[in-house]
Amino acid sequence: MSVYLHDIPLDKAQQRMRSALEDAGLWRVLGDESIPLDENALGRVLAAPVWALTSSPHYHAAAMDGFAVRAEATAGAMPTAPLTLSAFKYVDTGDPLPADFNAVIPIENVESLDANGALTSDLRGPAAIRIRAAVTPWSHVRPLGEDIVATQLVLPAGHVLRPYDLGAIAASGHTTVRVARRPKVAILPTGTELVPMGTALEPGDILEYNSLVMAAQIKEMGGEATRFPITADDFAAILERVREAAREHDLVLLNAGSSAGAEDFSAGVVEALGTLLVHGVAVRPGHPVIFGVIARDETTKPSPVTGETASGKIAPRNDMIPIVGVPGYPVSAALTVDIFVEPLIARWLGRPPRILPVMEASLTRKITSPGGDDDFVRVAVGRVGEKVLAAPLSRGAGVITSLVRADGLMLLPHGQQGAEAGQRVEVRMFRSREEVERTIFAIGSHDMTLDLLAQFLAEHDRRLVSANVGSLGGLVALKRGEAHLAGSHLLDPETGEYNLSYIRQYLAGEPVSLYAFVEREQGLIVPKDNPKKITGLEHLVREDVTFVNRQRGAGTRVLLDYHLNRLGIAPEQISGYNQEEYTHLGVAAAVASGRADCGLGIPAAAQALDLGFVPLFDEEYQLVIPKRYADGELLGPFFEVIASRSFQAAVAEMPGYGVDRMGQLIAEV
Amino acid sequence: MSVYLHDIPLDKAQQRMRSALEDAGLWRVLGDESIPLDENALGRVLAAPVWALTSSPHYHAAAMDGFAVRAEATAGAMPTAPLTLSAFKYVDTGDPLPADFNAVIPIENVESLDANGALTSDLRGPAAIRIRAAVTPWSHVRPLGEDIVATQLVLPAGHVLRPYDLGAIAASGHTTVRVARRPKVAILPTGTELVPMGTALEPGDILEYNSLVMAAQIKEMGGEATRFPITADDFAAILERVREAAREHDLVLLNAGSSAGAEDFSAGVVEALGTLLVHGVAVRPGHPVIFGVIARDETTKPSPVTGETASGKIAPRNDMIPIVGVPGYPVSAALTVDIFVEPLIARWLGRPPRILPVMEASLTRKITSPGGDDDFVRVAVGRVGEKVLAAPLSRGAGVITSLVRADGLMLLPHGQQGAEAGQRVEVRMFRSREEVERTIFAIGSHDMTLDLLAQFLAEHDRRLVSANVGSLGGLVALKRGEAHLAGSHLLDPETGEYNLSYIRQYLAGEPVSLYAFVEREQGLIVPKDNPKKITGLEHLVREDVTFVNRQRGAGTRVLLDYHLNRLGIAPEQISGYNQEEYTHLGVAAAVASGRADCGLGIPAAAQALDLGFVPLFDEEYQLVIPKRYADGELLGPFFEVIASRSFQAAVAEMPGYGVDRMGQLIAEV
Repeated sequence: MSVYLHDIPLDKAQQRMRSALEDAGLWRVLGDESIPLDENALGRVLAAPVWALTSSPHYHAAAMDGFAVRAEATAGAMPTAPLTLSAFKYVDTGDPLPADFNAVIPIENVESLDANGALTSDLRGPAAIRIRAAVTPWSHVRPLGEDIVATQLVLPAGHVLRPYDLGAIAASGHTTVRVARRPKVAILPTGTELVPMGTALEPGDILEYNSLVMAAQIKEMGGEATRFPITADDFAAILERVREAAREHDLVLLNAGSSAGAEDFSAGVVEALGTLLVHGVAVRPGHPVIFGVIARDETTKPSPVTGETASGKIAPRNDMIPIVGVPGYPVSAALTVDIFVEPLIARWLGRPPRILPVMEASLTRKITSPGGDDDFVRVAVGRVGEKVLAAPLSRGAGVITSLVRADGLMLLPHGQQGAEAGQRVEVRMFRSREEVERTIFAIGSHDMTLDLLAQFLAEHDRRLVSANVGSLGGLVALKRGEAHLAGSHLLDPETGEYNLSYIRQYLAGEPVSLYAFVEREQGLIVPKDNPKKITGLEHLVREDVTFVNRQRGAGTRVLLDYHLNRLGIAPEQISGYNQEEYTHLGVAAAVASGRADCGLGIPAAAQALDLGFVPLFDEEYQLVIPKRYADGELLGPFFEVIASRSFQAAVAEMPGYGVDRMGQLIAEV
Repeated sequence: MSVYLHDIPLDKAQQRMRSALEDAGLWRVLGDESIPLDENALGRVLAAPVWALTSSPHYHAAAMDGFAVRAEATAGAMPTAPLTLSAFKYVDTGDPLPADFNAVIPIENVESLDANGALTSDLRGPAAIRIRAAVTPWSHVRPLGEDIVATQLVLPAGHVLRPYDLGAIAASGHTTVRVARRPKVAILPTGTELVPMGTALEPGDILEYNSLVMAAQIKEMGGEATRFPITADDFAAILERVREAAREHDLVLLNAGSSAGAEDFSAGVVEALGTLLVHGVAVRPGHPVIFGVIARDETTKPSPVTGETASGKIAPRNDMIPIVGVPGYPVSAALTVDIFVEPLIARWLGRPPRILPVMEASLTRKITSPGGDDDFVRVAVGRVGEKVLAAPLSRGAGVITSLVRADGLMLLPHGQQGAEAGQRVEVRMFRSREEVERTIFAIGSHDMTLDLLAQFLAEHDRRLVSANVGSLGGLVALKRGEAHLAGSHLLDPETGEYNLSYIRQYLAGEPVSLYAFVEREQGLIVPKDNPKKITGLEHLVREDVTFVNRQRGAGTRVLLDYHLNRLGIAPEQISGYNQEEYTHLGVAAAVASGRADCGLGIPAAAQALDLGFVPLFDEEYQLVIPKRYADGELLGPFFEVIASRSFQAAVAEMPGYGVDRMGQLIAEV
């Protein structure tokens, strides 16, 4: 049943994987072990139900300090008609109820008497006690089995142990606990271009950290990961490594080389050692996912997987182990492990697979997708006013930070070619609703102080999520109710004022407050020491100068166009005018890489990448905040931070920034 | 500022604790350490922001296998007007883009030509390439910094590390990571009556497992717990243990002895070593909670805590450490750690305190509370039809299983004396909404096979939560829409039929289906070997026989009354007729403990506690299920399980059960 298929649907791939494992008797708890009942049992999965060995309490216990009595003997006692008892026994909380007694009267409800019937302070050994109220049988007694009765079910198999559970298991008489053994997963990074973390990077080197992420994922799932050293792209070397890994593990993750290129050996290795069942799954990010079953021992190739119906009762085949070929891009790798490996680890541990909680949200912008794939789109999620919004993040499979920033995943199922702005979508959430409610959405112009602001807000129980769409894009987003605030530095060429005229035009009808944030220098970001001696905008027309621009609607672009106009320079005269970047750092990175000779931006961006900077203008970078958010609880900590001396001092330390007016209300529009 | 107070409000206690720690410079991250960036960093808390050291990618990288070209040179290429290029270079995915090129054309979009202009299979070294479409600059290129730009904020301080985060930190050039050090917590169990786990229990012994639960809680919070051996109730011994613990830890948890009884030494020990700030908090379960600050070193008592305003900038006082006196009952102990210790550990780690997600639910029954306390009521939560229900569980502070069964905590704030049935309440959830949606609420008569059913359902992605209120109580609960199904065995003395007449009476207007479940024996549960030779109900009137009954509305009680009536025995003739238990196991426990000589019940309960059994009758235990649930998705796995041979075989193995008709539809009413 050797099958070689390209891009089968996700559900079919999962089904094929499951069937093969069922046939091999490997779709079940792999094994179990008895471990001491201590705090290291936390998070382990019960391999068998816990039935109580003893009852708790195992005797009738006094629930208060006081006197054990027979309830029947207290009948008739009343405040006005006290009763004196001579048959009683003092008990502390937790003491066994003495035979012949069936209730406890708390010590504070009793008058202790001496042999003469006078009140005594000898609370524990009085000659008699006087009471002024009757008690019912079993009052202030914890009866045998109140908590647990021997033989009852304490916890079912498959339960993941929490702190309280350990107490209940202990209370039911156990000192050890039977848990599923942790599946052992071998992680094999392969690729000639890979270098280990800590290497000084040369162009073309790829830092190998997929094995780190995957090992952490496996650990979090309850497995035990072994990270193997990097293997170069060499069929024989990879084959040998896989054989070695297969001997001592339950699963092999072979990272990269799972596509169909000249250097992609994974499929061949799987075929050489066993059966290739899946090659290519219609899932994004992901695609070149491989699944197969290989021999555990190199000396004998196992008999082929049979097509028998699975019953779950087949003895596990110790001669075979599954192997997953994981794509190389970091996001693809991580999601492949989440999608294909997590359910397998869950099954091997006997716990339910992880199900991410789902939240409904409204999509902030249109996205498209090739209709044939199940497309997992990373999104940031926050509440703006009444609406919960999902903002799509970078879709690049190499952009690991998009997973870090993601609050969840939105699935565009195959057959669906995209989704419209405003459409209701379901997001599988990484974060809780509570975190979403603490999220401040900032959109608009990019400024490097926003990173600093995010750090300070994190210490004040707020999460700042910022999207960089340029100043004008920010105003438009505010109008659409898609953010709490927008950073903007749009110069009005007529008035010399910042933002006000744009706000009136783009935010008509929405009451907003405009706050000062930073004054900052703008100028040309150039390579270190400015080799081409570019000192003004007039140099942009030089034949040997390539420019990198900001996108349409960016305040920096407005500034550029304003000054070009004053200088009488037409865009067509500038090479690279149409090369657009979305952030200052993007412009700096373009200059640092040699893609451009200069770009207009802020000095902090130049400094960040160790570049040169030619100061040209000063400008106001301000914050536009609709009044309904400015007055709300969510932004409280935000105003606190920007008014704080510690934040202002941290900003002032960055090159080219002034903070004199930070936090001041400029206008209400 | 030595303060000794009884039962101050919770918020005041927390505030006093925080102020003292602020004054001592201990309300801050305790310290940090640099650890290797590997999978063991998972769950650690960043002690400093992570700023990117390098960009990722650190060069312009080809995003596809193909040919690097200058985009400008491709202008005009069309399917009908191919263009031949001689300036190009083959690149694999990940290769650096060669200087002078600014785009990549994927290999599948290119025709390779040999020196004569003919098609060649030499894909990597053709003499020329022919293309049929123009490309834009930077297409199929991952530009420098696409993922991360050097100097940008990767993650803020206080962030708890997840698998993806480790990848982003690695990608930004780090090989180590600065995290908060784990707070060290000493856990000191004290009490002469305590015995360690594994001890053969005598009456009066109390199994010490609080230290286990607390150690696991501390571990889960991110701290490091040390469990000390049990110390007897001896002031000097406890004092010495606390001194010893204080030297090497950041916090001491002194378990039990925190009340004000004769054997309660915790407050005295704290006063001897430092300052007692709180003694008694108005919180249930909890109450005798102690908080104080003591000297770290036994040789010098520190100067008293000052009343200075906290600024958070005070150097931490290494000569003092906080101590919490934790109450002895298991539920009180666990909740004290959750309420008082968790926020402290969070602060010491620099992460946000844990906030349980809140869910609205409708209370199933009235509860009362002393108005002076913040009362945390454990509840089971499930959805029945359109309503999310919160069913209060046992409120006993000694009932650890109530925490295990709890899906969340409902807070009755001080000032509120209770809540009504049907009232909307907020529940702080331990479980996710998704788990709540998978919960089957069973209510009614207790049968031991329900434990087994819970175990089987757990393996089918369903959680069975059962409440035992007797058969009649179950029907009433169904009528009120508070459960999905009810177990019932109500004999109609007129017809000899089970349940049908009761259903018609109590569930009028609600279409229900009645399913057969088990046939079971009922009889007298007696001590082993039946020392009093009780062989029938007629013996219940004997002077030397004490009976234990089931509660009103229980099917077993109906059965008893039916047969007593036939025998002409009046309840008044039976000693213990008014002693009520809610389950078969409760009855068996009463007999096992000697509280009663016999009770009517099922043989499985007798066997569970190694008791004798006198079989008297056979009866039908059936399941009543409203049609709207019987047909729903939630109960699908339930019907599957009760129809399965494996479940039926497991039930048949229990004594006194018949499963011949299990799962059959008896009637639709």
